[in-house]
Amino acid sequence: MINSISGYKSANLIGTKSKTGETNVAVFSSVVHYGSNPPILGFVLRPTTVKRNTYDNILDTKYYTINHINEAIIEDAHHTSAKYPEGISEFDKTELKEEFKNDFYAPFVKQSAVQIGLKHLQSIDIKANGTILILGEITDLHINDAIIEPDGFIDLMKAKTAVVNGLDTYAIPTKNKRLTYQRPK
Amino acid sequence: MINSISGYKSANLIGTKSKTGETNVAVFSSVVHYGSNPPILGFVLRPTTVKRNTYDNILDTKYYTINHINEAIIEDAHHTSAKYPEGISEFDKTELKEEFKNDFYAPFVKQSAVQIGLKHLQSIDIKANGTILILGEITDLHINDAIIEPDGFIDLMKAKTAVVNGLDTYAIPTKNKRLTYQRPK
Repeated sequence: MINSISGYKSANLIGTKSKTGETNVAVFSSVVHYGSNPPILGFVLRPTTVKRNTYDNILDTKYYTINHINEAIIEDAHHTSAKYPEGISEFDKTELKEEFKNDFYAPFVKQSAVQIGLKHLQSIDIKANGTILILGEITDLHINDAIIEPDGFIDLMKAKTAVVNGLDTYAIPTKNKRLTYQRPK
Repeated sequence: MINSISGYKSANLIGTKSKTGETNVAVFSSVVHYGSNPPILGFVLRPTTVKRNTYDNILDTKYYTINHINEAIIEDAHHTSAKYPEGISEFDKTELKEEFKNDFYAPFVKQSAVQIGLKHLQSIDIKANGTILILGEITDLHINDAIIEPDGFIDLMKAKTAVVNGLDTYAIPTKNKRLTYQRPK
């Protein structure tokens, strides 16, 4: 229940590659925007998750990717939460396709309409419960042209971008409302 | 554009009350679940936001509320981003209603189906860009019975819970898919 009460969460796949070249992709629902200038995203790693190889790869190689989950890849994205032994890539166990672009070290997820390449900036240990906040600066950004509006707004609805409720429920926003900058009445 | 690329964000109203009794409510899209035991939520305060009185009240009084935004209150919730001078409560300038429960110091938002009372735990300065991560432990929780399923799952869709895309676009998930716990294939 506590997993649902922060509201809907972002649904992303984090892609990494080990020093020895093994790729890895895992679902995360804690990606948050930390700033635009410089562009920084953060995500939270829980000590109980077994997705330590994602973090080990980030520490070892500095680079990782964040890729939006959309309706077509929900099942495969969710399957990356399964606990595979080290040395097995989730790219081999699902229909998710790794994609390498512009010599960026870590793999992007080919099916994602928004693919973000980041360089590790800082890790912060949260004493309250042993989680780790991982901050990265965006160095590469690939967005499907079809979802970019003339003013630069990204239409996540057109991309059928998913959100997460709790641990295992994925939802798709299908109606939206754009409001204006607000001034006092 | 950078505001949209982390994907959809949670849509919440944070309610506080100053030492001298003035209430305050402001929209935040950075609330993230940091752990279930103890139950901890975090949110990010950007140095450029003028919503400093939210933070001042939290530091002064220790208590604040996080309240889900739903379809019916999107416009009023968004209006709390307007820059009102100190001493003017957003509760007076919108149809949002403050609600006090069980002697909890800060106001809940009456129209929210999920109302969370928190005690400030820790603030973390993010050196990379001067933002502040504010962590709080959940001490009070009020959830509309109509959205709690028999197994404890909270049906955010039934509550018409909103998400945020970028700075000013609100979306409502209208279809969802619950998946199972994943094991290796």
